[in-house]
Amino acid sequence: MAGSTFGRHFTVTTWGESHGPALGAVIDGCPAGLPLSEEDIQPFLDRRKPGTSAVTTARKEDDAVHILSGVFEGKTTGTPLSLMINNTSQHSKDYGNIAVSYRPGHADYTYDQKYGFRDYRGGGRSSGRETAGRVAAGAIAMKILNQLGITINAYTRSIGDIEINDAAMDLAYARSSAICMPDPEAEKLALEYIAGCRAEKDSVGGCIECRMENAPAGIGEPVFDKLDAALGKALFSIGAVKAVEIGAGIKASRMRGSENNDALCMQDDQVAFKSNHAGGILGGISSGQPILIRAYVKPTPSIYQPQDTITKDHQDTVLTIAGRHDPVIVPRAVVVVETMCALTLLDLMLSNMGSRMDHLTLIYHP
Amino acid sequence: MAGSTFGRHFTVTTWGESHGPALGAVIDGCPAGLPLSEEDIQPFLDRRKPGTSAVTTARKEDDAVHILSGVFEGKTTGTPLSLMINNTSQHSKDYGNIAVSYRPGHADYTYDQKYGFRDYRGGGRSSGRETAGRVAAGAIAMKILNQLGITINAYTRSIGDIEINDAAMDLAYARSSAICMPDPEAEKLALEYIAGCRAEKDSVGGCIECRMENAPAGIGEPVFDKLDAALGKALFSIGAVKAVEIGAGIKASRMRGSENNDALCMQDDQVAFKSNHAGGILGGISSGQPILIRAYVKPTPSIYQPQDTITKDHQDTVLTIAGRHDPVIVPRAVVVVETMCALTLLDLMLSNMGSRMDHLTLIYHP
Amino acid sequence: MAGSTFGRHFTVTTWGESHGPALGAVIDGCPAGLPLSEEDIQPFLDRRKPGTSAVTTARKEDDAVHILSGVFEGKTTGTPLSLMINNTSQHSKDYGNIAVSYRPGHADYTYDQKYGFRDYRGGGRSSGRETAGRVAAGAIAMKILNQLGITINAYTRSIGDIEINDAAMDLAYARSSAICMPDPEAEKLALEYIAGCRAEKDSVGGCIECRMENAPAGIGEPVFDKLDAALGKALFSIGAVKAVEIGAGIKASRMRGSENNDALCMQDDQVAFKSNHAGGILGGISSGQPILIRAYVKPTPSIYQPQDTITKDHQDTVLTIAGRHDPVIVPRAVVVVETMCALTLLDLMLSNMGSRMDHLTLIYHP
Amino acid sequence: MAGSTFGRHFTVTTWGESHGPALGAVIDGCPAGLPLSEEDIQPFLDRRKPGTSAVTTARKEDDAVHILSGVFEGKTTGTPLSLMINNTSQHSKDYGNIAVSYRPGHADYTYDQKYGFRDYRGGGRSSGRETAGRVAAGAIAMKILNQLGITINAYTRSIGDIEINDAAMDLAYARSSAICMPDPEAEKLALEYIAGCRAEKDSVGGCIECRMENAPAGIGEPVFDKLDAALGKALFSIGAVKAVEIGAGIKASRMRGSENNDALCMQDDQVAFKSNHAGGILGGISSGQPILIRAYVKPTPSIYQPQDTITKDHQDTVLTIAGRHDPVIVPRAVVVVETMCALTLLDLMLSNMGSRMDHLTLIYHP
Repeated sequence: MAGSTFGRHFTVTTWGESHGPALGAVIDGCPAGLPLSEEDIQPFLDRRKPGTSAVTTARKEDDAVHILSGVFEGKTTGTPLSLMINNTSQHSKDYGNIAVSYRPGHADYTYDQKYGFRDYRGGGRSSGRETAGRVAAGAIAMKILNQLGITINAYTRSIGDIEINDAAMDLAYARSSAICMPDPEAEKLALEYIAGCRAEKDSVGGCIECRMENAPAGIGEPVFDKLDAALGKALFSIGAVKAVEIGAGIKASRMRGSENNDALCMQDDQVAFKSNHAGGILGGISSGQPILIRAYVKPTPSIYQPQDTITKDHQDTVLTIAGRHDPVIVPRAVVVVETMCALTLLDLMLSNMGSRMDHLTLIYHP
Repeated sequence: MAGSTFGRHFTVTTWGESHGPALGAVIDGCPAGLPLSEEDIQPFLDRRKPGTSAVTTARKEDDAVHILSGVFEGKTTGTPLSLMINNTSQHSKDYGNIAVSYRPGHADYTYDQKYGFRDYRGGGRSSGRETAGRVAAGAIAMKILNQLGITINAYTRSIGDIEINDAAMDLAYARSSAICMPDPEAEKLALEYIAGCRAEKDSVGGCIECRMENAPAGIGEPVFDKLDAALGKALFSIGAVKAVEIGAGIKASRMRGSENNDALCMQDDQVAFKSNHAGGILGGISSGQPILIRAYVKPTPSIYQPQDTITKDHQDTVLTIAGRHDPVIVPRAVVVVETMCALTLLDLMLSNMGSRMDHLTLIYHP
Repeated sequence: MAGSTFGRHFTVTTWGESHGPALGAVIDGCPAGLPLSEEDIQPFLDRRKPGTSAVTTARKEDDAVHILSGVFEGKTTGTPLSLMINNTSQHSKDYGNIAVSYRPGHADYTYDQKYGFRDYRGGGRSSGRETAGRVAAGAIAMKILNQLGITINAYTRSIGDIEINDAAMDLAYARSSAICMPDPEAEKLALEYIAGCRAEKDSVGGCIECRMENAPAGIGEPVFDKLDAALGKALFSIGAVKAVEIGAGIKASRMRGSENNDALCMQDDQVAFKSNHAGGILGGISSGQPILIRAYVKPTPSIYQPQDTITKDHQDTVLTIAGRHDPVIVPRAVVVVETMCALTLLDLMLSNMGSRMDHLTLIYHP
Repeated sequence: MAGSTFGRHFTVTTWGESHGPALGAVIDGCPAGLPLSEEDIQPFLDRRKPGTSAVTTARKEDDAVHILSGVFEGKTTGTPLSLMINNTSQHSKDYGNIAVSYRPGHADYTYDQKYGFRDYRGGGRSSGRETAGRVAAGAIAMKILNQLGITINAYTRSIGDIEINDAAMDLAYARSSAICMPDPEAEKLALEYIAGCRAEKDSVGGCIECRMENAPAGIGEPVFDKLDAALGKALFSIGAVKAVEIGAGIKASRMRGSENNDALCMQDDQVAFKSNHAGGILGGISSGQPILIRAYVKPTPSIYQPQDTITKDHQDTVLTIAGRHDPVIVPRAVVVVETMCALTLLDLMLSNMGSRMDHLTLIYHP
């Protein structure tokens, strides 16, 4: 129960540290018969990779994924998929001051408290690098969802105070944007703002929004494993996320009931809703509307400025963290949010398979 | 995997519908040797009960809890605790229009989609009444935490746009406030606002804040079972919650790194932090600082106004929901938030027991 | 993780002690839409009840089951089923010598070691009475399996050294036999043998065999959650079981490969096997043949003879256990074996629902 | 829930097929601070390796294990341990007749039924080769248990009808025996018997016994997760196991209660038992006595003789399986039984850590 496994049906276990020889994920419970190769996964890892733009670090991460098991003759066999990504850049580095001091905003102190001991190289297991395994696994979930007609898209909603204009939303643009922003104008302002932060040796946060479309109604389990609870857990499991909103989110808490309730109606003989404040989830179960969720990401804790902290021997000190730091984590986290949503939705769809006698009969007593 | 179980070590399974004969919870994994009686649990259920004040419904819920197993000679035995609460008010009622129409903002439509069938009496399993089982179970978790020196307090932070003033915070006052607000001035405004909503046959939402103090550093599992992920799941599993913030929350996404990072320092020979934007959690693991979390609750979906919706036979209709409705859910949900936090924290503390060789040796090879 | 939950999809949590006010089970994950009432469950509990025959105790157990949740208008709703059985005979008794001494062959000493404390009334949670909850839950699993055309029958294979003759097997007879033996001749000898043991203030064990027919091929998960592993766990979780065999069992270990292998062949255009040494399971997955399993039960540990033991204060003593004891547990355990097999098989069938892309497509993208 | 994960606290997920590029295991939940290197694991894998003796295949398996994560400066960090073993001998082979025909006694037919598709190369995931991952993981569990003073030893109890003489038991001898038999005389007869089978192109089964010593009393969870239930599941999860006995096993079912009950007594001021028919487990919880368990293994299903079977197109056929086959699996399975017992015992010890208030207080409120 040490927390490196996600999902109960499409089960992903990630392993690996920032500076070990490799990292990866094992997926157990992938349905058999899915056509799959490394090419299905690599594009997602490439989206997570630090680019050459001004806003991400220049550290080279090759991140080529290898499927070590679970595929035969180009299709999944139903048995575990082992995915491995070699760490190409484990240069033996001097971690001197990080080894003895706790970086503010990082997990250094808490890992030491939990384990009595920590891998200080690049944050070890608490490094954002761990998300490579999730993204690789999520790419496979995404392929399955796509085959069922479901799409999931995440993008940068805001950087600092700069927010996109919903009217200008262009998802295709976001995919080519260095900061994954679907609004060119907001993107321009955000890039300038980030550049300013970088010049001041500082960092900045933002908001990632994710939209899931064509998910069937009826997904999510009552009470504790509600779809929103599962998505909330999934997003809060991403290191830097400090808030999560579903649908209208905080705004819902300020609305009247008459305003917040999404009225149902018939439209072209289909069930429809006149608004989507609920974000596609009612009572923890999907309604068939688009599912909307937002994750708020804190500014990168590693900054170039000297910071007050203590050593592990409990002495006050001032720490300047060497190395290269992203001034903003948000753009690289976009694909992490997207794939975590895919893992969550697929897991609950698999969980739902046996919830009705008529479905059971369909499979076992046709 | 149908979602009615919470926790992996202090495992709570709730059962029961709004209008069945009873509801309850089974707790498996409660440590043996805890002094326990119904009197430890009842005060928490009483806080959840609708009162006689202007802001909650007059429906009588007796909510007397019975411990049916797991206690012998006044102490827990380590085996399952079965808690039962009889439903005293299952008057056979005419559910006519709810039975055939979907209430906007409720789970009626989604349950029908999931199960092909639903218990329409008072929302069945999706009713807020289900939380009685959680609260009863959480009261036991709270007693254990208190014995370890940990306290947890939730209160109403805002109603609609009316927010408490942190400087005026008075937790003792909140316990006697009809709306659990720890600031008398904000409470007065909020009560007026709620009364206005009620007069307009409308409802209103708000925010609940929860503060956990004296929790040891080192609680939470890396990666997917982070303390914040577990708390996020716990709070989003409460029906009406649409957003969750930890520490600075959304504000963190607008701060600079230099501002958001909580500097460490030594204070009276103890490790301390100069601020608590992180809300007591770093890398998913508790830091020893107070843990701070906020849940944003939507307005009560049941209102006295007629609403557009459809029937289960897919006809447009206008629905007026009979019965008595709370104009605001927030005050009754405060103890639900508090007990869900207790369940989450205790569960991760139990999960943490075997995470170090020195702890293992302490128990098994003293 | 305290062990009172069985299954991951059709999840059963039992609670209750021998001498508490009630005991029961909560089932989460029962498919919605199953017609269900107490009458479906009661006959299974009645089979478990001590009768008036010479071989079971005279203690009166009424064992009337009540469904407290999860059924609406005569059908399961997909939400938790809470089953409760009141303990009608909790006469305040003098447990004096059991309270201070450890009964040989019972869990008294080990519970004290585990929990530092135990409920000594009738064995508390370790009592065979706990199985009432499992049987009630298993009755529901059985109803689902029956609707899918699957039958499960357990019976007494042997008492002491007296074994049934397979040629004389009469399952209908077993249902009316006081000792559940499907062979009248063996039954007569066994009854005589048991009467002799009883006269000598002693007890006796035996073997229960269970046969599952018409289960589809393809059930069971590779590696750790094999169908045989799950059945093995299920049967060893019954208090007195000391050995489990599948198919040819121990005999297989003495055969040659050429003899033990079950040859496949076509028969009336159907896949068939020329023998069934495997007991219907290959590589942990059902083959479509009848599934055969045997559980060997130790003699009742409570006997009327004085026995050497120690007190909880670590003094040697001689203990004579008061009360009424079954000279043999086997007949009452038959329905426990049968229902545990039902719970196991159904759970793995539900687990299997999403294991293939074609099944996923059948449900979600018809 | 696809079955490749074992344990809930010391959680092992294995992956890999017989003829893929590699196989391995991920362990999550290993306590931090354990000194660990590949040298701790390799000897266990070497014991599993086919030797050069007459009784095992000549196929070369190098089986060098690599630790890819979770160790820093020679000690476990508490985060996942990823173990990988490259498959050195994946020569592209002609699997012609196996690809189209179902081998009797193997999982070929059942995998096809479950997944609609199978990896026919060497049995794919159902191959005994999968156990390499378990053995590697179990070696780590064993190191922890050893540090707590607990020892676990498995050995061959019988081959066909040839059984060891308990009086001649020599565990050290078993470690050097080609067939892991602790009795030189029985070993000689067994080797002759195996040679005879081989000459007749046939195979043979046997029994493996495992003895766990110095395990503390109080391990195992009541009801469904009893220590014996967990061990039963663990052993039946090994491909060829068809029966499991604990303590006196089947013999217990033929004893009288007065004979089978293990009397307690004081011995040198310690709690002791006058016999050990229970095999060290009472009510599913360890008693402190040696834990004794036996697994009965079927004869190798792959034999050199032609066998009747069917093709996947449902035609009768005669199959002769090419390649090299062990005439007996038992000796190679000894270390698998031993390590599965280690994984089971450690997992339940970790599960037990938070079962008492006094233990909780010891860790969190010293």
